[in-house]
Amino acid sequence: MSIEIVQEHPSVELSRIAISETHGENSPYFAGWKAYDEDPYHELTNPSGVMQMGLAENQVSFDLLEKYLEENSETSSWGKGGSSFRENALFQDYHGLKSFRKAMASFMEKIRGERAKFDPDRIVLTAGATAANELLTFILANPGDALLVPTPYYPGFDRDLRWRTGVNIVPIHCDSSNNFQITVEALESAYRNAESMNTKVKAILITNPSNPLGITIQTSVLESILDFATRKNIHLISDEIYSGSVFSCDEFTSIATVLESRRYKDAERVHIVYSLSKDLGLPGFRVGTIYSYNDKVVTTARRMSSFTLISSQTQQLLASMLSDEKFTDNYIKINRERLRKRYEMIIEGLKNVGIECLKGNAGLFCWMNLSPMMENQTKEGELKIWNSILHEVKLNISPGCSCHCSEPGWFRVCFANMTQQTLEIALKRICDFMNNKDRKDIQS
Amino acid sequence: MSIEIVQEHPSVELSRIAISETHGENSPYFAGWKAYDEDPYHELTNPSGVMQMGLAENQVSFDLLEKYLEENSETSSWGKGGSSFRENALFQDYHGLKSFRKAMASFMEKIRGERAKFDPDRIVLTAGATAANELLTFILANPGDALLVPTPYYPGFDRDLRWRTGVNIVPIHCDSSNNFQITVEALESAYRNAESMNTKVKAILITNPSNPLGITIQTSVLESILDFATRKNIHLISDEIYSGSVFSCDEFTSIATVLESRRYKDAERVHIVYSLSKDLGLPGFRVGTIYSYNDKVVTTARRMSSFTLISSQTQQLLASMLSDEKFTDNYIKINRERLRKRYEMIIEGLKNVGIECLKGNAGLFCWMNLSPMMENQTKEGELKIWNSILHEVKLNISPGCSCHCSEPGWFRVCFANMTQQTLEIALKRICDFMNNKDRKDIQS
Repeated sequence: MSIEIVQEHPSVELSRIAISETHGENSPYFAGWKAYDEDPYHELTNPSGVMQMGLAENQVSFDLLEKYLEENSETSSWGKGGSSFRENALFQDYHGLKSFRKAMASFMEKIRGERAKFDPDRIVLTAGATAANELLTFILANPGDALLVPTPYYPGFDRDLRWRTGVNIVPIHCDSSNNFQITVEALESAYRNAESMNTKVKAILITNPSNPLGITIQTSVLESILDFATRKNIHLISDEIYSGSVFSCDEFTSIATVLESRRYKDAERVHIVYSLSKDLGLPGFRVGTIYSYNDKVVTTARRMSSFTLISSQTQQLLASMLSDEKFTDNYIKINRERLRKRYEMIIEGLKNVGIECLKGNAGLFCWMNLSPMMENQTKEGELKIWNSILHEVKLNISPGCSCHCSEPGWFRVCFANMTQQTLEIALKRICDFMNNKDRKDIQS
Repeated sequence: MSIEIVQEHPSVELSRIAISETHGENSPYFAGWKAYDEDPYHELTNPSGVMQMGLAENQVSFDLLEKYLEENSETSSWGKGGSSFRENALFQDYHGLKSFRKAMASFMEKIRGERAKFDPDRIVLTAGATAANELLTFILANPGDALLVPTPYYPGFDRDLRWRTGVNIVPIHCDSSNNFQITVEALESAYRNAESMNTKVKAILITNPSNPLGITIQTSVLESILDFATRKNIHLISDEIYSGSVFSCDEFTSIATVLESRRYKDAERVHIVYSLSKDLGLPGFRVGTIYSYNDKVVTTARRMSSFTLISSQTQQLLASMLSDEKFTDNYIKINRERLRKRYEMIIEGLKNVGIECLKGNAGLFCWMNLSPMMENQTKEGELKIWNSILHEVKLNISPGCSCHCSEPGWFRVCFANMTQQTLEIALKRICDFMNNKDRKDIQS
């Protein structure tokens, strides 16, 4: 920052949250990104560089979006007379474009196999799921209160849910003994932990399908989580931003479907978060949404969304795109198939060199178990192997500890943010590493 | 909201800020909007309806934007191959597009007559000035601390600066005795008030040019405000979102220019807020920015901007538009001229029927003095006349009390959110009202 500031007085004070440095800058997450940024793989110019497998980005279906835009170029430009530009540029109603909310509701129904209904008037638009999760936390909890969140969870939650709200996260520990499914015992135990810390639990936040696990939550488990929330009279936030990335629609139950089967009994405690960043691969467009069954939450969230509105230009483009049913039907189908293919390819490749993954059915990543390779079943052991993979194999993957996984040895491997060819090279690197390792093991 | 929720348990609790209803829903601001929404003026279908003069929107130069988009249609659509779409859709770096930050910095220099330099690396992008002001408040103050804000001020600050941050606003009272300029005495008095309330003052927030006053702050006053901030070792936020709407560039001094003249001594306490909503008339696109001279604030604001990023689609369009120097030079010049013409027309018209306004030189509104017409020089007297204007004259204007003006009888009248023809009709309505009133006064 080239303008040089002359400081003659004692430095002017900042707020507590500006001073706090507890937002993960020293975590493996940042170290991995740094290594990638300093030496990024490129097939021609840097074929021995670091490959980015720590980024849950969906690039497998971009050609479908590009084709749509080519065939419907009028959706992203303004009419010759420019008449719609004027309205669009001025549009800042925090309800959002009605046409866009309708298209979103319909898209959300489609990816749930029409087993849930969404009312456009309950959709609150936000600039991404990051803002949606923070906004719900502001509305449901006071500073010092807690949200229960199953582990392993998305590392960004430590920032999104806590930073500006002053709310705490209390982990619900899950492990491989039951394929990381959430149990009533784990819920009760987390709740008791919160009580013993004198923090008031206001909500459970689940991600379904789970990031980083790449699995959906079973219907019976959802039922028991909702029953638990009802028993404790707390809220339930269901972050379903990967719901369109389940490999087979039948394998996903939304909390919305559970509520529909219960005829919306007790629905006022349930809030769904969705976004177009993952399923449609549009993180740059900043499109998130809160869908709440609680009228007061809808009203408050809508007012608070003034801090985080979506560009009307982007709303207009996506309203056109998502209301084209032929396009969305085809996109959802093809995208699911391609993600499954990618997943199967990587799982199969890893299996061939003796690496097992959690059996997944959703998302842009797999959850890989390297604990058999670890000398010490500790966080240190996990980070040691992570370090080898980053600096020797030159793959940036995410260690489970960055997701607060209580069982060491698990890693998230993203497979949708690169070309098929690059993925094949990444897989080959892992295989070579394993084969060399075996050889070394035999020799030693 | 058509999905009906069955509630069998005691209602689930929300947070304090969700429950609080203190955000102005019962204010004249909302009453005026309601009256307009229920009976909006339309020249053909509802010529006796309520006219909206409470909205600080700039529509006077839309034709220039439309012409640009017509002549440069490639800026808002993607190439045939769609290659840039892919990059754009994925772009979510919280630094924002480099090309856009450069174009913004250059645009900000232009509207300050090149009397200030802006470094693109100090620009933090946010989804509108609303988010920028809130974000700065989070960074500079803790819950319970205070910001000093000169009155009259933009009513939205009560929400933007306080709602989620828990920070207080302590007014710096200004009045017509010195044309509402801020004095050191008023600053000291506000500071003492804060002390007596046991709240710690962390910053002064000025709006320059002022909304609702429609005037710029004199250089000598800016100097004394900055000296005051330095003496108290507090921050200074300068909200300059109307800086491109000053009728003559020479009449505006940015705090950036003051700092430049001091060679950036003590600049680390200064932060500027800007936006394209007013000067360019693009509130729907949600483009705001924080420009800070404090490295730590830049870094923290950038990280926190993940809650409120601007759509990359919109960044791309505006990067092209604002880096076209021929377009921006012409736009800034013509826009200033047109706003001045509007302003002079309304001032002149009001003068003809005996209404005086504060001598303005900026903005999308004038500050009208109706105190001579008021029987009681009180807030009640002000609201009585406001009510007559809303329900008899059918003009929605903003009473000074909604802006926390401590002197009753002042009103903000917006003149840039309608056609010239509609403005003429509005003016005629006021004139008729005044003439009828005079007749009634004579008859009574």
